[in-house]
Amino acid sequence: MPEYKAPLRDMRFLVDEVFDFHAGYAAMGAVDASPDMVNAILEEGSKFCEQVIAPLNRSGDEEECQFDNGVVTTPKGFKEAFQQFADGGWMSLSVDPTYGGQGLPHSLGLLFSEMIGSSNYAWGMYPGLTQGAMAAIYAHGTEEQKQAYLTRMTAASWTGTMCLTEAHCGTDLGLIKTRAVPQADGSYALTGSKIFISSGEHDMSNNIVHLVLAKLPDAPAGTKGISLFIVPKFLPGADGEAGERNAVSCGSIEHKMGIKGSATCVINFDNAKGFLIGELNKGLNCMFTMMNHARLGTGMQGLCLGETSYQGALKYATERLQMRSLTGAKAPDKSADPIIVHPDVRRMLLTMKAFNEGNRALSYFCAQLLDQLHADTAEQRQEAEDLLAFLTPICKAFMTETGLEVTNHGMQVFGGHGFIREWGMEQLVRDCRIALLYEGTNGIQALDLLGRKVLGSQGKLLRGFTKLVHKFCEANAAHPQLQAQFAQLATLNKEWGDLTTKVGMAAMKNPDEVGAAATDYLMFSGYVVLAYFWLRMAVVAQEKIEAGSGDAAFYQAKLATADFYFKRLLPRTMVHRAGVEAGSESLMQLSAEQFAG
Amino acid sequence: MPEYKAPLRDMRFLVDEVFDFHAGYAAMGAVDASPDMVNAILEEGSKFCEQVIAPLNRSGDEEECQFDNGVVTTPKGFKEAFQQFADGGWMSLSVDPTYGGQGLPHSLGLLFSEMIGSSNYAWGMYPGLTQGAMAAIYAHGTEEQKQAYLTRMTAASWTGTMCLTEAHCGTDLGLIKTRAVPQADGSYALTGSKIFISSGEHDMSNNIVHLVLAKLPDAPAGTKGISLFIVPKFLPGADGEAGERNAVSCGSIEHKMGIKGSATCVINFDNAKGFLIGELNKGLNCMFTMMNHARLGTGMQGLCLGETSYQGALKYATERLQMRSLTGAKAPDKSADPIIVHPDVRRMLLTMKAFNEGNRALSYFCAQLLDQLHADTAEQRQEAEDLLAFLTPICKAFMTETGLEVTNHGMQVFGGHGFIREWGMEQLVRDCRIALLYEGTNGIQALDLLGRKVLGSQGKLLRGFTKLVHKFCEANAAHPQLQAQFAQLATLNKEWGDLTTKVGMAAMKNPDEVGAAATDYLMFSGYVVLAYFWLRMAVVAQEKIEAGSGDAAFYQAKLATADFYFKRLLPRTMVHRAGVEAGSESLMQLSAEQFAG
Repeated sequence: MPEYKAPLRDMRFLVDEVFDFHAGYAAMGAVDASPDMVNAILEEGSKFCEQVIAPLNRSGDEEECQFDNGVVTTPKGFKEAFQQFADGGWMSLSVDPTYGGQGLPHSLGLLFSEMIGSSNYAWGMYPGLTQGAMAAIYAHGTEEQKQAYLTRMTAASWTGTMCLTEAHCGTDLGLIKTRAVPQADGSYALTGSKIFISSGEHDMSNNIVHLVLAKLPDAPAGTKGISLFIVPKFLPGADGEAGERNAVSCGSIEHKMGIKGSATCVINFDNAKGFLIGELNKGLNCMFTMMNHARLGTGMQGLCLGETSYQGALKYATERLQMRSLTGAKAPDKSADPIIVHPDVRRMLLTMKAFNEGNRALSYFCAQLLDQLHADTAEQRQEAEDLLAFLTPICKAFMTETGLEVTNHGMQVFGGHGFIREWGMEQLVRDCRIALLYEGTNGIQALDLLGRKVLGSQGKLLRGFTKLVHKFCEANAAHPQLQAQFAQLATLNKEWGDLTTKVGMAAMKNPDEVGAAATDYLMFSGYVVLAYFWLRMAVVAQEKIEAGSGDAAFYQAKLATADFYFKRLLPRTMVHRAGVEAGSESLMQLSAEQFAG
Repeated sequence: MPEYKAPLRDMRFLVDEVFDFHAGYAAMGAVDASPDMVNAILEEGSKFCEQVIAPLNRSGDEEECQFDNGVVTTPKGFKEAFQQFADGGWMSLSVDPTYGGQGLPHSLGLLFSEMIGSSNYAWGMYPGLTQGAMAAIYAHGTEEQKQAYLTRMTAASWTGTMCLTEAHCGTDLGLIKTRAVPQADGSYALTGSKIFISSGEHDMSNNIVHLVLAKLPDAPAGTKGISLFIVPKFLPGADGEAGERNAVSCGSIEHKMGIKGSATCVINFDNAKGFLIGELNKGLNCMFTMMNHARLGTGMQGLCLGETSYQGALKYATERLQMRSLTGAKAPDKSADPIIVHPDVRRMLLTMKAFNEGNRALSYFCAQLLDQLHADTAEQRQEAEDLLAFLTPICKAFMTETGLEVTNHGMQVFGGHGFIREWGMEQLVRDCRIALLYEGTNGIQALDLLGRKVLGSQGKLLRGFTKLVHKFCEANAAHPQLQAQFAQLATLNKEWGDLTTKVGMAAMKNPDEVGAAATDYLMFSGYVVLAYFWLRMAVVAQEKIEAGSGDAAFYQAKLATADFYFKRLLPRTMVHRAGVEAGSESLMQLSAEQFAG
């Protein structure tokens, strides 16, 4: 298993030097988020991740969760680690102090979650899902609900889930069959079966708070008739603690390709007592509140696992001796050269590095926007909301596609050893693979981006971002070292708009043009977005080198990686542009029978 | 698990209509390989694959091979299936009748192996490795060795292995440490430990014939001191059957990401009795005899698993109801439309179909070349050898890269269900992943193609293929329906040569340019090669339609898929060209320390 070390230097580069989180924190009046405090949290957090949960990653994959007659047992050590997590107050980091939280900025929580995900993604699902449920309760719950549930979840004494999918519907939630019947006491009786419920049943907490999408018997058809309910595994007793068992049970757990330490459950509701949260028939809207956050988190799964894979591959590449460099022996005293001398191995490592660091920059930019959602002025809040709405599907899909590529490169660097489970490299591929599927498949993200966000706003949300890029390019058009890259980015930024107009026009005649273009459009967008962030990093690196502020090797590496990104990865935009321009015709010619050949 | 049906229609399209195997068979004087006989073998072979080994694929993955104190137990049913395989005479298909074979053309054996690989790749490793060992014995063994070993392997009573890799070397075989000490009786005593030995130990045959690379104590350093030895698990007794146990033992088996039903063994030789095969110190050459065949087979792994994945994904896409078509309901009587109506799902299916059918054409073209290796004239044999030398690394790497992409698309079509093991779609990804690593990593294939084959022959081997493409384009430059595609291919064919010249020039100044360009050069080549085969298929399809020879839907689908390939996949050449042209500089800037950030 690669030994994960939190990339604190790179994290601080973004937090301190590129985005200046501290200025934002100061402006928010987040007095506790001083630079020292932030550093202390990252340091302490990294220790928890490296020392407590990372060592459980391989064993968790081998043991998997076990199911026996409704009871789910998590892999050895998971429960104890969660207790340490609770004791350390880690769940409360970004929670409102009213409900027992520390009130630190959301961005800080996201940084911590990156380290958790890199160390042990499966374990991280339990607190992760809990945070999602907490966000929904915080946004839509009554004060009473918040006191009853949120406080206990903040203490990590109770955990949470999101129950959306049923066997016959995932994407198409309008089809759900779970029914909620109003009861005399104001509660609801829920009946139905949900699948793919992460953390749906386990042995790590005293209670599990399910947030369940269901329909009232007389609800409008489709998505407009969906309501959201709190259905706890144990109903809160008179003392507020977990009391009587509710009619909620785990029917089975799934056997999966990866994230095997995460319990993926069938959860059955059999006249279970539930409580409406938010407005009747507005359940999907409530879910969408947290969807952006969850999708950003899922996008980061690509970064998290990509980072660990990179660390493993780099170590192996410097230690494994095989063949000589084509330009002559580099380690003549050894039997062969370390494989990092070979250009093709470097190509893989640099691809990994360029995606990881670029994806990290994109993630942290979004993390800052999460903070800005709580800014003082409506204008600032709206700007953050628009940028997040636009960037979220890109984060989710682009970062997971590239994350999967990165983890596959990491395996490849190991040669045949990459296929052997003990090395841990193949687990990262398997753990990453789900990220392209859940929280809305990447195809759905692409439709969300192109159809709903970009064309649905008549291009406004796109322009909100391209404007940033345009200004940045304009300001640096004469940059002494990076002029060529800025010109390249400016050209792509313009093409992005032109391509959008072209698809928009075509879609007015034929709606299938949106579906035909969506995935390539999203990937095109992702490459341009990352080019923007690579130049933001490069500009800072160049400044630091010129200022002679030390750490020159680090900044030189940033510049070299930016150079690699522009030369070897950004050209992929050409293919995605061709994909967008290819139109729907070549896709729609065949009948279903003809596909069978 | 997707229910595999051998794609006999598509196989016959290539065999009968595109490549006309029968003409070749007739010319070879392979009298038994009449069209009827070929059809009968494909029909019977497909039944064995579909009914006997396909049903063991999922269970084999779940059970894995078990190791207990040197004994390896294969998954339930594997042994019995192998007995049926032996009883059916399937191992003897393409073997020389002198050693008990049926003497059918090699190409026919390859077609059968496609069906085996699609049905149960892990099971297919046992006969597959045996065939590799048989090829080496046939090519380099003495008559006595052939009688002793080959006849029993032909009967599938004994199986074989290839023992190359050691813990510290895979690519760099010059470093091997296994020693062979000459004995008074003319045999050798072998001592050493080999890893990653597929089928190294198991319960399916009476004996296991290891072909082992080792060095004599006084052997020259590096690869020039490697010899090849036959080391049977049981030494042949006076009756020729398996007799006394040799000092060969299985130390452990690997826990792997996929092909879990295939036993991957550590094999220890402890003064084991071995017999030289071929010349002393020419062991690597002997191994390379069968390497081309093995690499072609590994390339086909991408096709095999891609085909099964496609069949599964297509079935799911026609049955799964989710959302409505953007152009209006297509199944208004159902709760939602089958997902095959969505352009983005079709994009995935067509990508799978285009790669599978293109890769199949490439494979069968090579299969024909395998036959041509035994042609009457030296000129024909040389032509086949040159084309195979050139196409083999492309088959191995391009078909496995695209096969992995295909199996990943297949999973993606299933949404979240794709991640669940019961569906069998994720197993295909895992089983495919090894193909990019073993038999020489794809990076090594790329170096072999660009460095050894293309530049090493001063471009001769490349021109051998581009000449075919050129003539074909010239002959069809005015093709009424396919003119545009022919122009596109002709342009790329020319670019291929220009790109090669450019890299060759750069490499003369700096050998790292080869390594920097190799992978992108191979992928560029692969896309052009497949474009050539897609047009060969399209031309035939167009002729058949015009001749009104029936089955128009099949031929229309070929044309539509060719159209898709040219519009949406072939543009990827742009990126790979950019990768080749990017040069080595952006790869070589960073020190090993700087990679760590």
